[in-house]
Amino acid sequence: MSRLENDTFLRALRREPTEHTPVWLMRQAGRYLPEYNATRKRAGSFLDLCRNAELACEVTLQPLERFPLDAAILFSDILTVPDAMGLGLYFAEGEGPRFERPVATEADVARLPVPDPNDELGYVMNAVRTIRGALAQRVPLIGFSGSPWTLACYMVEGRGGTDFRQIKTMLYERPDLLHRILDVNARAVSAYLNAQVAAGAQALMIFDSWGGALADGAFQAFSLAYIRQVVAALQREREDDGVRSPVPVIVFTKGGGLWLDALADCGADALGVDWTVNLAQARARVGDRVALQGNLDPMVLMASPDRVRAEARQVLESYGTPRAGHGHVFNLGHGISQFTPPESVAALVEAVHEISAAQRR
Amino acid sequence: MSRLENDTFLRALRREPTEHTPVWLMRQAGRYLPEYNATRKRAGSFLDLCRNAELACEVTLQPLERFPLDAAILFSDILTVPDAMGLGLYFAEGEGPRFERPVATEADVARLPVPDPNDELGYVMNAVRTIRGALAQRVPLIGFSGSPWTLACYMVEGRGGTDFRQIKTMLYERPDLLHRILDVNARAVSAYLNAQVAAGAQALMIFDSWGGALADGAFQAFSLAYIRQVVAALQREREDDGVRSPVPVIVFTKGGGLWLDALADCGADALGVDWTVNLAQARARVGDRVALQGNLDPMVLMASPDRVRAEARQVLESYGTPRAGHGHVFNLGHGISQFTPPESVAALVEAVHEISAAQRR
Repeated sequence: MSRLENDTFLRALRREPTEHTPVWLMRQAGRYLPEYNATRKRAGSFLDLCRNAELACEVTLQPLERFPLDAAILFSDILTVPDAMGLGLYFAEGEGPRFERPVATEADVARLPVPDPNDELGYVMNAVRTIRGALAQRVPLIGFSGSPWTLACYMVEGRGGTDFRQIKTMLYERPDLLHRILDVNARAVSAYLNAQVAAGAQALMIFDSWGGALADGAFQAFSLAYIRQVVAALQREREDDGVRSPVPVIVFTKGGGLWLDALADCGADALGVDWTVNLAQARARVGDRVALQGNLDPMVLMASPDRVRAEARQVLESYGTPRAGHGHVFNLGHGISQFTPPESVAALVEAVHEISAAQRR
Repeated sequence: MSRLENDTFLRALRREPTEHTPVWLMRQAGRYLPEYNATRKRAGSFLDLCRNAELACEVTLQPLERFPLDAAILFSDILTVPDAMGLGLYFAEGEGPRFERPVATEADVARLPVPDPNDELGYVMNAVRTIRGALAQRVPLIGFSGSPWTLACYMVEGRGGTDFRQIKTMLYERPDLLHRILDVNARAVSAYLNAQVAAGAQALMIFDSWGGALADGAFQAFSLAYIRQVVAALQREREDDGVRSPVPVIVFTKGGGLWLDALADCGADALGVDWTVNLAQARARVGDRVALQGNLDPMVLMASPDRVRAEARQVLESYGTPRAGHGHVFNLGHGISQFTPPESVAALVEAVHEISAAQRR
């Protein structure tokens, strides 16, 4: 079905048997790698790096040169979409992403466009194509986007790391306005992800990084409903050299452990879970509806290789041995810290492969 | 049993019938009140305010003058205990609390004392006595402390709002060291809370503000176990003028919704829950083991009084009408924002009282 040398990741997402538990790490191409920092310096700014297909490809492949990871993920940022809507993304040094023109008024909402993913976001598709070429069928490439709600948080707050006061005031006082933003975002995200599939992405992930900030009830109405709208509009199959393959979709709501049941019915193939979730309980709850991805605390990687191995074993044993109709992809419960020693990652990937292969014997 | 004019709050915590759902708000004495800011200015620093019994009493009572709240809470800070251990608490302007001498080494841990609550922390007991006098049996006074884990986060990180890298490195690499800190904290917190009861506190609350940062498994071992140790050591009864009354204990793990089952067995009378929790599901899960406190999103208070009322109704209806053996205390899911219009609080308290009284008819 696939010409990939290593399609373990895709098979686990399809809940098919695998010889070991596949592993990749959120933000695996990042600042904990000296070679990343070197490329980043050559590129100029973070955005320059995202917009340069050759350099984005270079950093995407860097962790794969060091560690036998089972998937690559497109190097980009979740805020490319609102940037393409004209909000003016920039990075204040040491302070994370900001928008020059946040969405504040009814008029701002009315003029929000659905960007053409092959025009304003063409640089992302170039990166996808370049990376696919360079990967040469070693492992699958994951494309991604922020969820409609998570993008809206940045668009309305103008930045991350806030108390969500602006967007929640809108949510409680003008829900109609927020629903309009979320509908634009859902259409933009669907088009963006489908363009990534057309350009070569073999799996998709939706990052609902701020879903966990919502109240019960509000989460279902303002985040989950629009994730569902996106997932329903996605291209779930692609063709490479005449071979058709499914394109699995992973949805990750950070802090969404209480809503796993509802998330399991959103149409995705797999759910990401953070480290607060008990994998055994989560597996029992979602049954054979979805595979699970996660969920090591990234801070475990600050400890010695022996401790990393012990904690990796605990995550694998908590999930248990995958049976038919179930699937587990090993990952962190959040992006890797910039302070992670690369040796810890080497120990982790080796431990996951060894321990999970032994579990299956 | 009690000479209080209004003991609705205590009865709800004891899961006895009440005429309406009692309501108080975390951080109800705070910066959203102009009169608080005026007193704070007179006091000097935030710590000066905590250390001045008359002024701490004044701000504790301010929200009760405006709103018919069903409980008062001691005005203080959760970091008084580690400050009394000699770590040097200070507040960097606009940046939250810091410690001059964070706990970093084995030697630092070895010299951590259990402070005498009537000596180094005597100013807190003075405040409790002064407030009880001024309250003159209107409503009960809540004493409080941070949980051992939450205090340890500040003690090791030296500040709040971090990625928990220092303390989690210790947790994964030197769990023995962290357990020693947590044991000291548990003994210090028990003594501190018991001294508050002796000074006049009629209910106690343990704030496990950072419990939700822990991985499943780690939460049980590094936070819950020490909350249980504290609760087991607490004085659960007090005598006022020859009348003996129980002293109920509330435990609040922010982000702890996934662990409600285990929390319900920690020995507390009630559990605080944040807004991500579905109250109907939580009530079904904890049964008649504990009362529940919560859980309006504080950002609802940014909306108009009509919306505040509608959202308050939703919280009350989600819990449902308390029956024998169940109890609900209305609160926010986190501290009130400094940007809250006081009119919203007036609308909220009125709505909770009216709607919950009507529910019982």
